[in-house]
Amino acid sequence: MGMSIAQKIVKAHLVEGDMTPGERVGIRIDHTLTQDATGTMAYLEFEAMGVDKVRTELSISYVDHNMIQGDFRNPDDHRYLQDVAAKHGIIFSPPGNGICHQLNVERFARPGKTLLGSDSHTPTSSGVGMLAIGAGGLDVAMAMAGEPFYTPMPRILGVRLMGKLQPFVSAKDVVLEVLRHTGVKGGVGKVIEYFGPGVESLSVPDRATITNMGAETGATSSLFPSDDATRRWLRAQGREAEWIELKPDEDVVYDEVIDINLSELEPMIAQPFQPGNVVKVSEIEGMKIDQVMFGSCTNSSLRDLMAIGHLLDGQKVSSFVDAGISPGSRQVFMEATDRRSIGKMISAGVRILEVSCGACIGMGFAPNTDGVSLRTINRNFLGRCGHKSGKVYLVSPEVAAVSAVTGVLTDPRKFADKVGIDPFHFELPENLVIDDSRFIAPSIEPEKIEIRRGPNIKPLPDMAPMGDVTEGEVLLKTGDDITTDHIMPAGAKILPLRSNIPEISKHVFEVLDETFPQRSLDAGGGFILGGSNYGQGSSREHAAIAPRYLGIRAVIVKSFARIHLANLVNFGILPLTFVKEGDYDRIDQGDRLSIDTKNLKAGDTFLLKDETKGIEIPCVTPVDQDDLDIIKSGSKLNFVKDRSPERA
Amino acid sequence: MGMSIAQKIVKAHLVEGDMTPGERVGIRIDHTLTQDATGTMAYLEFEAMGVDKVRTELSISYVDHNMIQGDFRNPDDHRYLQDVAAKHGIIFSPPGNGICHQLNVERFARPGKTLLGSDSHTPTSSGVGMLAIGAGGLDVAMAMAGEPFYTPMPRILGVRLMGKLQPFVSAKDVVLEVLRHTGVKGGVGKVIEYFGPGVESLSVPDRATITNMGAETGATSSLFPSDDATRRWLRAQGREAEWIELKPDEDVVYDEVIDINLSELEPMIAQPFQPGNVVKVSEIEGMKIDQVMFGSCTNSSLRDLMAIGHLLDGQKVSSFVDAGISPGSRQVFMEATDRRSIGKMISAGVRILEVSCGACIGMGFAPNTDGVSLRTINRNFLGRCGHKSGKVYLVSPEVAAVSAVTGVLTDPRKFADKVGIDPFHFELPENLVIDDSRFIAPSIEPEKIEIRRGPNIKPLPDMAPMGDVTEGEVLLKTGDDITTDHIMPAGAKILPLRSNIPEISKHVFEVLDETFPQRSLDAGGGFILGGSNYGQGSSREHAAIAPRYLGIRAVIVKSFARIHLANLVNFGILPLTFVKEGDYDRIDQGDRLSIDTKNLKAGDTFLLKDETKGIEIPCVTPVDQDDLDIIKSGSKLNFVKDRSPERA
Repeated sequence: MGMSIAQKIVKAHLVEGDMTPGERVGIRIDHTLTQDATGTMAYLEFEAMGVDKVRTELSISYVDHNMIQGDFRNPDDHRYLQDVAAKHGIIFSPPGNGICHQLNVERFARPGKTLLGSDSHTPTSSGVGMLAIGAGGLDVAMAMAGEPFYTPMPRILGVRLMGKLQPFVSAKDVVLEVLRHTGVKGGVGKVIEYFGPGVESLSVPDRATITNMGAETGATSSLFPSDDATRRWLRAQGREAEWIELKPDEDVVYDEVIDINLSELEPMIAQPFQPGNVVKVSEIEGMKIDQVMFGSCTNSSLRDLMAIGHLLDGQKVSSFVDAGISPGSRQVFMEATDRRSIGKMISAGVRILEVSCGACIGMGFAPNTDGVSLRTINRNFLGRCGHKSGKVYLVSPEVAAVSAVTGVLTDPRKFADKVGIDPFHFELPENLVIDDSRFIAPSIEPEKIEIRRGPNIKPLPDMAPMGDVTEGEVLLKTGDDITTDHIMPAGAKILPLRSNIPEISKHVFEVLDETFPQRSLDAGGGFILGGSNYGQGSSREHAAIAPRYLGIRAVIVKSFARIHLANLVNFGILPLTFVKEGDYDRIDQGDRLSIDTKNLKAGDTFLLKDETKGIEIPCVTPVDQDDLDIIKSGSKLNFVKDRSPERA
Repeated sequence: MGMSIAQKIVKAHLVEGDMTPGERVGIRIDHTLTQDATGTMAYLEFEAMGVDKVRTELSISYVDHNMIQGDFRNPDDHRYLQDVAAKHGIIFSPPGNGICHQLNVERFARPGKTLLGSDSHTPTSSGVGMLAIGAGGLDVAMAMAGEPFYTPMPRILGVRLMGKLQPFVSAKDVVLEVLRHTGVKGGVGKVIEYFGPGVESLSVPDRATITNMGAETGATSSLFPSDDATRRWLRAQGREAEWIELKPDEDVVYDEVIDINLSELEPMIAQPFQPGNVVKVSEIEGMKIDQVMFGSCTNSSLRDLMAIGHLLDGQKVSSFVDAGISPGSRQVFMEATDRRSIGKMISAGVRILEVSCGACIGMGFAPNTDGVSLRTINRNFLGRCGHKSGKVYLVSPEVAAVSAVTGVLTDPRKFADKVGIDPFHFELPENLVIDDSRFIAPSIEPEKIEIRRGPNIKPLPDMAPMGDVTEGEVLLKTGDDITTDHIMPAGAKILPLRSNIPEISKHVFEVLDETFPQRSLDAGGGFILGGSNYGQGSSREHAAIAPRYLGIRAVIVKSFARIHLANLVNFGILPLTFVKEGDYDRIDQGDRLSIDTKNLKAGDTFLLKDETKGIEIPCVTPVDQDDLDIIKSGSKLNFVKDRSPERA
């Protein structure tokens, strides 16, 4: 049977395991990336491993999240990251250079390579035909230390694209349509591969938008072939030599297939509070809006900025709308400035926010109380925009632009007809401005680098091995689709604490129950109960480390999202799933539970004793014996130290 | 005896009093401005007065300070301000339109008019030959209600300018030189007027830089004549019809005169933590820097942005420097984008921050711990950059630009010589882009406007009349030159609380003593003891309202800054000064004091009983009987209601 692209890349990088779907494989990692919100912890972990110089072909440390700098915390983190990068052979991309995924697609992503990134949207780079996977910071630190990356071999979900996008319908609508099919868990355990005659009409930035937001399906990655469009992109970036052709075998058989006819696609929108709540714009058009945000790693390419400028040319943002844009990178910003698109936006009344992740992660530009915010970003989780009452809708740049003008949700096709705007065509320039001056090379005298650690940068807390019995109270019972934004919120107040576990732990589950952290500490820890797809969303390992710091030693749910599951293992929290999902209903918050954790054996049934109810509930763990050994030792760092004491 | 420009404008607007220096005059206010950090409170006060429509010629509500929008608070304030403006005949300038002073100079400032603004840098507009004065929000609210503005008639400090600025020396260096002469209290009770042959070589934006930072001398305002340069400026802004000539009489006699020869001036720098700590750049050049910030109401004109672009063209910001710019207005941003200056900055590696006050007020872009930050702003007070360990130095755009490249404090003349950069010449364009689309006109159906008040917008607390005896503890003893940034800090954490007195009060004096708010509440209020120039800096009335909320009823110091003194009166805090300054040393923090406050009489000696020490200390009040009556009634709002019960 022929192989898909992902299977070919895995095969070329296979270090351990066999490629049966669901079985654990270890793959060699060529490139890594981190961003600052996950990076400080990842590098603290890397430092703990005692490796002098990264063992990857390429490792990059980006700063793009924590850029408000309301006090010393953010800039101290930036200094720490710059020093660590200089000392350990890592390229440093300082604040202002751009969003990690946009920059990586521009300057580093290479067809056929593997990339592991401590950000769930790392698959953006798969738009150039590489296998790019998001992971927790510790897994990325391990990869930098030369260890393989272990993950269950994914099944392949093929998406067959037919036809061609019509005017004012764009890549964002494609991925929203995919999400309409899959929902937010339909991609778990899979790689999504795009194929069919519609593929060639999509440029690399279009593809990157699609692979970026594939993360919202729960997929391990999303992949496009490396073809002529890829070659054109790399040529424009001065990197044609890095191009190789990469396509699936003719006789590939996908595990499942979704068909999308691009010609028939219309503008789509995801409603609060899940990116899978997708409907057609036409179904809810006319809704009054308060805010529009352009940008983010999903939609901040030059193509997108030119499309916005095209639609806003000569128009004015409604007096009742607050509109802002964060361009994706210095390259995009320079090109869009030279090509007068930025000028058109300023003239229209759009606020030019900084080149950063910005509002997407709640770092500023929050809407007003109960405000309706149209955003070109990838997530609309409860509270992610800065507060719980804000209602974020996810749309294409085209929908966002015309709605900013009208003040209500508007179909760009109708607006263009009415106002008389020509269809937008974007031809990728032959040569883009290439200026790598803000990629700071590692030091040539690394031994001379002194690493500066600001007062908010605290070491990773010690994590004790798991005892023979794990017992305690159900401290929180949650529903389905709990995101890492629920578990460990982001935003302007909390993100600056990412380097300080004791402090950030005070905000765990804040969006659901502000009493959780103190109750956990008072109780000396306990259990969390959840529904299906627990831990979807961001790769932040803080959603495991901080609960662990509060004393959580087991999480029992209907099903887990991939990255969070790995993070739980890495920080010694036992992940369990119900044998019978209905048992979820038999346990209440406050119940006292205990589990025999003397001998953790993969495949065993774990009997959960509910002492309050006087019942026993059978559970299993979705992880394998290696993972259980890690959990038993307390954390992956403990496990590695035990295994290789010379590294400790 | 001939009159100065300020005297002519006062005379034309005199409603009450005579123009003897130091005597109270009441003047008619033509224009008002507010910004959002002081504006929400000012409009709450205005609403309390029950006036339907402003009685000024022109009133504008700008949003430029509180623009991070980390949660719902900032955007809710913006909504409130927009609704109030629509309802009461006020022009609203939403976030992104620009910094109030830059916008006002561009679009509204008119020679010969009076402007009262709830921002201490309101005198920026005096660069076009108007009398622009900063005041507390309540005084601005009173002016909007048609009341005169009362202030002591200022003396006139003439600054005679000779010669012409040499290449890479600019307007900022002129005002830093003035500050070197006056220090931060040399202007108290005065208006600074610029005259002499050097004046004509300075453009309106140059003049606005100088009048802006005149606030740092403590002056009531700083004035330039309205001459051909003023006419050129108004013409470029499409407002030539608003020009009138305005110059001092030939036989004017200034109360004092400072001479400055522009030809001999060299680049200057103000060291932490006072804008009066001025030395020549050459005296400390070579100092290592961590950060550079361009922008603010002092230095964000098109001229300044073009100068920065000129110096950075083809250069790269040092890898060890974090550099950012906040352009001053949409007009400036559009022009500097079209003229490629913004592109040069992006290319050099400068972060393009939003058009706003931004880092100047600690709203983001803080330096790292112990970081050295070169800024083109006007204030370098302790903690104002976001934290106490940051060291801010105030410089010209030219010094900032070249130092960003070298990574150390650098004289731009030497850098230009070395690198081969031509002198910078800026000719004001004949026509600037004029786009008033983001000035939102008041509603034509004001009765239909419903004012939205977010959950953080709280009414002004009630303020009880003053009792017959005022007693309590000295809760804090401070030194000289205490700023309103010490009393009521700004920054990303505290500014969003400006509409909520109970909440913001928890941060009073945080930068000096974090225990102060709780100690005050526990003690049921008390006294503050201070040195000279108490309350310099920002016009924020929160520096009076919040201490009053905590129970402070009297402040005893060596001398007061003008705006803060007026704010204390407005919110019922008795301001006292020592008859003998040396008595300051006889009282300690913690001493128990009492004052007879039964009959407050101007000119009387107030005997301060220190019950702890068993001594009596004579004090006087620098305010007049009208002010004392206000204090006795509890607040100016109480006083107005008592006087005009129909308004209550």
